[in-house]
Amino acid sequence: MKIGLLGLGTVGCGAVEIIQKNQRDIKGKTGTDIQVTKALVRDLNQPRLVPIEGIELTTNPQAVLADPEIDIIVEVMGGVTLAKDYIIQALQNGKYVVTANKDLLAQYGKELFEIASLVKRNIYYEASVGGGIPLIRPFKHCLAANRIKSVMGIINGTTNFILTQMSVAEKEFKDALEEAQAKGFAEQDPSSDLEGRDAAYKLAILSSLAFNSKIDVSKVYTESITKISLRDIMYAKELGFAIKLLAIGEETDAGLSLRVHPTLVPEAHPLATVHNEFNALYLQGDAVGEVMFYGRGAGSLPTGSAVVSDIIDVVRNINHQVDNGILETTFPSKPLVPMEEKVSRFYVRMKATDEHGVFGSVATVFGDEQISLDMILQKRRDFNVAEIVLVTHDVKEAQFNRALCKIQSLVSIRNLSNVIRVLERS
Amino acid sequence: MKIGLLGLGTVGCGAVEIIQKNQRDIKGKTGTDIQVTKALVRDLNQPRLVPIEGIELTTNPQAVLADPEIDIIVEVMGGVTLAKDYIIQALQNGKYVVTANKDLLAQYGKELFEIASLVKRNIYYEASVGGGIPLIRPFKHCLAANRIKSVMGIINGTTNFILTQMSVAEKEFKDALEEAQAKGFAEQDPSSDLEGRDAAYKLAILSSLAFNSKIDVSKVYTESITKISLRDIMYAKELGFAIKLLAIGEETDAGLSLRVHPTLVPEAHPLATVHNEFNALYLQGDAVGEVMFYGRGAGSLPTGSAVVSDIIDVVRNINHQVDNGILETTFPSKPLVPMEEKVSRFYVRMKATDEHGVFGSVATVFGDEQISLDMILQKRRDFNVAEIVLVTHDVKEAQFNRALCKIQSLVSIRNLSNVIRVLERS
Repeated sequence: MKIGLLGLGTVGCGAVEIIQKNQRDIKGKTGTDIQVTKALVRDLNQPRLVPIEGIELTTNPQAVLADPEIDIIVEVMGGVTLAKDYIIQALQNGKYVVTANKDLLAQYGKELFEIASLVKRNIYYEASVGGGIPLIRPFKHCLAANRIKSVMGIINGTTNFILTQMSVAEKEFKDALEEAQAKGFAEQDPSSDLEGRDAAYKLAILSSLAFNSKIDVSKVYTESITKISLRDIMYAKELGFAIKLLAIGEETDAGLSLRVHPTLVPEAHPLATVHNEFNALYLQGDAVGEVMFYGRGAGSLPTGSAVVSDIIDVVRNINHQVDNGILETTFPSKPLVPMEEKVSRFYVRMKATDEHGVFGSVATVFGDEQISLDMILQKRRDFNVAEIVLVTHDVKEAQFNRALCKIQSLVSIRNLSNVIRVLERS
Repeated sequence: MKIGLLGLGTVGCGAVEIIQKNQRDIKGKTGTDIQVTKALVRDLNQPRLVPIEGIELTTNPQAVLADPEIDIIVEVMGGVTLAKDYIIQALQNGKYVVTANKDLLAQYGKELFEIASLVKRNIYYEASVGGGIPLIRPFKHCLAANRIKSVMGIINGTTNFILTQMSVAEKEFKDALEEAQAKGFAEQDPSSDLEGRDAAYKLAILSSLAFNSKIDVSKVYTESITKISLRDIMYAKELGFAIKLLAIGEETDAGLSLRVHPTLVPEAHPLATVHNEFNALYLQGDAVGEVMFYGRGAGSLPTGSAVVSDIIDVVRNINHQVDNGILETTFPSKPLVPMEEKVSRFYVRMKATDEHGVFGSVATVFGDEQISLDMILQKRRDFNVAEIVLVTHDVKEAQFNRALCKIQSLVSIRNLSNVIRVLERS
């Protein structure tokens, strides 16, 4: 069975390497020889990370998309406009499609799945979220009996590496980011990772599967990790928490709540021990209870592993003449809960003039808004400034924000250094 | 589509409850109404845990197995002889089979899969290992591109609950066992769990998938947790380890190594934080790297979740006329590495007469056998007795056992209290 690649970068080369190395095992599992015969590339002369004998490189997309010998098109070129165009052409030419493109799926998944359904072909996208960690298929199959209540994930390796280094090596954000860039865990322009957009794309894909709903990725609330300082990490640790960038999807009677933000995670929670570039998805189903999937969320071979597992599934389905094994969930959109309605606990760090009565006035503001406090730390006085750290009990965002405004207007409060949401103890 | 149950105990009732509760979602996912119409039970009058309107109870197996309206037989009765017989009949009658029976599959899996293949039906068994945690399907699909190097699992909830309680609440083994029994996490006769046989069955099933080999479950080395004392747990903690009952399968050039034994797991290892009744499987693939699956390994709803996910897959396959989507691995057996050849690190606790030169003589024995020591603790002297705790570097079991014999013969050694294998730092 012949495969055409669109793109031959990190992930494409990973897939090629795995197919070459495990060819015999894959034949044992599928009864079929699989072979990458063509690859669409931008530059024919660029050096490649793996030997590519037997693969014809071309800069002409039609040479791959319209090749009647090719059954499976693997899109690992990235980007949205061209990739979408090529995938639609591939489907219309009767090809099965494997893609690792989260941006594309999060924005145009519904449209692509509908075209695939019309032409009775499937799009496989295990590699789009969580690298090699099995996530898409478990959702579609293993957890299919469940009504999913919530998904919570560390699904961006860059930010998790940075936050881990800040915690373990006690680095400031800037230094941790530089280390991540030096190690290849962060791009030169890391903003999509840092701001939570990358995680929001992945959350949109996972949530549409988990909650059987169309998700508008632009409606996912995101908050950056750039505001997290080493000081917050150390205070959180003292209070028994790790700070993680969590992507959270929940379904309640009021609707879906979808958000990506830095979160204080209790140390005993399984997500708190997911370190460095590792990813994990923790979810709750009504039948299965809590389940977590953990592994490498990026990289040439882990992501290649997911791509090749999809290829193997396509081969099995072609061999067994399954045209369209699983219909994608093209359910209508469910209503979203606005962030102001969301109930959370909050960590607050603020600087105050070190004089008597200050803490009392802060406490009074919270008391007036009927917000009760779970933890209080006051220390590091220098130059007549006290630092106050609080963790509230559950409160609606809108109500909490009202209290914050009042606190900022107190004369004794020098500044409100940071506010971070806190995960419920499970 | 009509389903017949064999057995209506904990897992059977869990499956019925999930089907009733999530009927609409399941129809949305499969396009098909599914309905449990008959259940084979031992006693028609026994009270059931869930409402069973619409389910005809019978004590006659043929009423279920030979019912032409039933497409799917779900075996949740347990036991080996009868269950095997019924499953074979069901296959021969053209039914698809879903089973949660690890004992049966570990012993007669190959035979059953061969019959299934002949009649072009499939046996689904996601529920046989790890309760609701997706394990079987990820092995067959998501990780299919990988050559699996090792699997390491906490796959017995009873022993993990006991060991966690010993560690967290500082209980002795006997008290922790009693608590596990009181909470329903341990049976009245807990020997299959404690001795590692339950985990060995599950390891056999997982290893046959991971390593493409027929596994003879009687060849899996097992060691009981009954020998672990609170003292060992506390020493291990002091040295930076948690003690877990691990089921380990590894493939090396010399062959497969399959074993279930208590193990000191470094605290930073993801398996060290799997507490109480939770299960987890940690594996290494050549492409995907490290992956872990975590969740509830037992219980009515979690295991029912896996059963119903299998039913949903059967329904999809029937709808798409896939006769036998995935052939089971009926590969020949790979050679096993004998335990004596296995290289490990060891924790040793011994009592010695508290006199000068004792530690020197112990160290000399290890030195003579070229075993180097990684960690040493000597304390808790009372009544002229010193307790010595050691952790060795890597050594072959045979070589280590020779050293142990010599140490036991030293006059100053009162007794060798315990020996436990230690997991490599990853």
